[in-house]
Amino acid sequence: MGGDHGPEVVLPGAELALERRPDIRFALYGDEETINRLLENYPRLKAASSVHHCTISVKMDEKPSQALRNGRYHSSMWRAIEAVKTGEADVAVSAGNTGALMAMSRFCLRTMANIERPAIAGIWPTLKGESIVLDMGATIGADAQQLIDYAILGGAMARALFGIKKPSVGLLNIGVEEVKGLEEVRTAARLLREADLASLTYAGFVEGDDLGKGTVDVVVTEGFSGNIALKAAEGTAKQIGQYLRSAMRRTWRTRLGYILAKSAFDMLREKMDPSKVNGGVFLGLNGIVIKSHGGTDAEGFASAVELAYDMVRNELLEKISQDMVSYQRGGFQDRIDNEKAESQKAGDQ
Amino acid sequence: MGGDHGPEVVLPGAELALERRPDIRFALYGDEETINRLLENYPRLKAASSVHHCTISVKMDEKPSQALRNGRYHSSMWRAIEAVKTGEADVAVSAGNTGALMAMSRFCLRTMANIERPAIAGIWPTLKGESIVLDMGATIGADAQQLIDYAILGGAMARALFGIKKPSVGLLNIGVEEVKGLEEVRTAARLLREADLASLTYAGFVEGDDLGKGTVDVVVTEGFSGNIALKAAEGTAKQIGQYLRSAMRRTWRTRLGYILAKSAFDMLREKMDPSKVNGGVFLGLNGIVIKSHGGTDAEGFASAVELAYDMVRNELLEKISQDMVSYQRGGFQDRIDNEKAESQKAGDQ
Repeated sequence: MGGDHGPEVVLPGAELALERRPDIRFALYGDEETINRLLENYPRLKAASSVHHCTISVKMDEKPSQALRNGRYHSSMWRAIEAVKTGEADVAVSAGNTGALMAMSRFCLRTMANIERPAIAGIWPTLKGESIVLDMGATIGADAQQLIDYAILGGAMARALFGIKKPSVGLLNIGVEEVKGLEEVRTAARLLREADLASLTYAGFVEGDDLGKGTVDVVVTEGFSGNIALKAAEGTAKQIGQYLRSAMRRTWRTRLGYILAKSAFDMLREKMDPSKVNGGVFLGLNGIVIKSHGGTDAEGFASAVELAYDMVRNELLEKISQDMVSYQRGGFQDRIDNEKAESQKAGDQ
Repeated sequence: MGGDHGPEVVLPGAELALERRPDIRFALYGDEETINRLLENYPRLKAASSVHHCTISVKMDEKPSQALRNGRYHSSMWRAIEAVKTGEADVAVSAGNTGALMAMSRFCLRTMANIERPAIAGIWPTLKGESIVLDMGATIGADAQQLIDYAILGGAMARALFGIKKPSVGLLNIGVEEVKGLEEVRTAARLLREADLASLTYAGFVEGDDLGKGTVDVVVTEGFSGNIALKAAEGTAKQIGQYLRSAMRRTWRTRLGYILAKSAFDMLREKMDPSKVNGGVFLGLNGIVIKSHGGTDAEGFASAVELAYDMVRNELLEKISQDMVSYQRGGFQDRIDNEKAESQKAGDQ
């Protein structure tokens, strides 16, 4: 029921994903009448789906606390997440209210053992292909331990998504000399280097312009700067698109040039198409939840479903669990606690 | 002597600026022999310049503390800043090491009364024209008071640069519901709204994609996220440029289209040209210092010099002082102190 267009986009999106991943089975949560009426247009999807009537759907502008109060146990959003908890579903996909989806996911699925806070991981198109960036704004701020958790979560996702054995992970930082980054970013860097994890290669600090270059497979940052980087990049892409369109309309020569080079512009549009990389992955929970962009079209929603499918098929959760266990065996939590105690002592003196 | 190319770019850049602002007079600090030799190629600049021999020049990779230790009093960077302090110069422009330039500027010029920390303000090209964004990375983190200082500094700069009587100022924030931004950003927002300043219009929160849209004249954020937003946007612009170039080379049709539409691509390049908006303005000091991009060309350095000229001609420092005084008369500092005390009390209970 979520997103700007509800089932009108979700159902054709699911149909598209089903064409490309024919073994998906859908459990659809929402208003039965609306869903059944629309499903008549998609006989193939209908055959692959069960419909579960829900009387409540979370509104796009509801605050997470409100959504939890009004929609816990009964809303379509809650029941889709709950299906992951009970094992009826392998993964939940929603185009609904991000804050509500995260709040319900945390409440219903709980965070994994030894992970304090979940993160939203996004896929960033780069000159080399794609990278994973997290946290995209699940929470604001992160201490060294949380940044290390994000590194492990993102590393596991890169193994599941890209099939890389030992993905490279960078910490987002700024390059001005005097202030080589936040204390917590520096601490996380030192500990990641010392930990020398089997599951990932710590590649050092990266800066904002490394995102587009694809310098590393996984970029780790806290949610405030991650969200701002994402939106600044999206805004710049739109801005350039608009410049280009108005420049191309200027004279008959540029218009003719545009017609001749249309295939190149189509390619550029394809590269910059946000629906191609649609889907924020909630990481760190006992279950996988994928957030599709609310304003996406059927093609975009299909991308989110296929991302969900791939995360399940490539055993994302199992990979995370393995990586967490091997990390904890290294005793790094103790080391961080010691560091904290020591730096406090130093501060007191 | 600073930047990737030293006087080879600085001098032709100064010459270009002089052509467009013929009443500039230059005081050039650096190696006398090199400068005098190069000045032979620019008789006009030579006639408008005095050369001041310095034996030391700050290296691009020196740490600020090192640069201060080695270059205080004697380096070309220090002496250019000192000329502003003594009144021999109205403004200093450098393409050198940013961290060292900021450290020396703070040490030599000191921060203005009632301003704790200086900021680096950048000019951001937008769909509507240009905006000012600060802090671009002078320091990491900012409390509510510092964000308000940045708002006032940025507002004064917008009046000096754009000639707008009452510029609109937004606070950079993220849109996820649960976490409507950092506590300090929320506090700054409330106080800016209550202060109802004569020098600016507080326009609320803006997100990363508002930067390119030009939603407000001035965007205020702390240096970490400001720097990351800047570099993410720069990286995206480069990325799209590269996509476009390779797409245009694909077939004879696209190549022909490119030739026909060349004027449009030139326009786009012009719009995206970083040298057009070159120059970070150090705000909050008792004097104006402009940082030119280290890798810029003569045209870019000329932009930085012209920005410096305009800031002086339009009385940036006087505008800041006026705005600070009218802000302090409002008694907002006391209010912030009260807020702090109260929120601590609330936290203790």
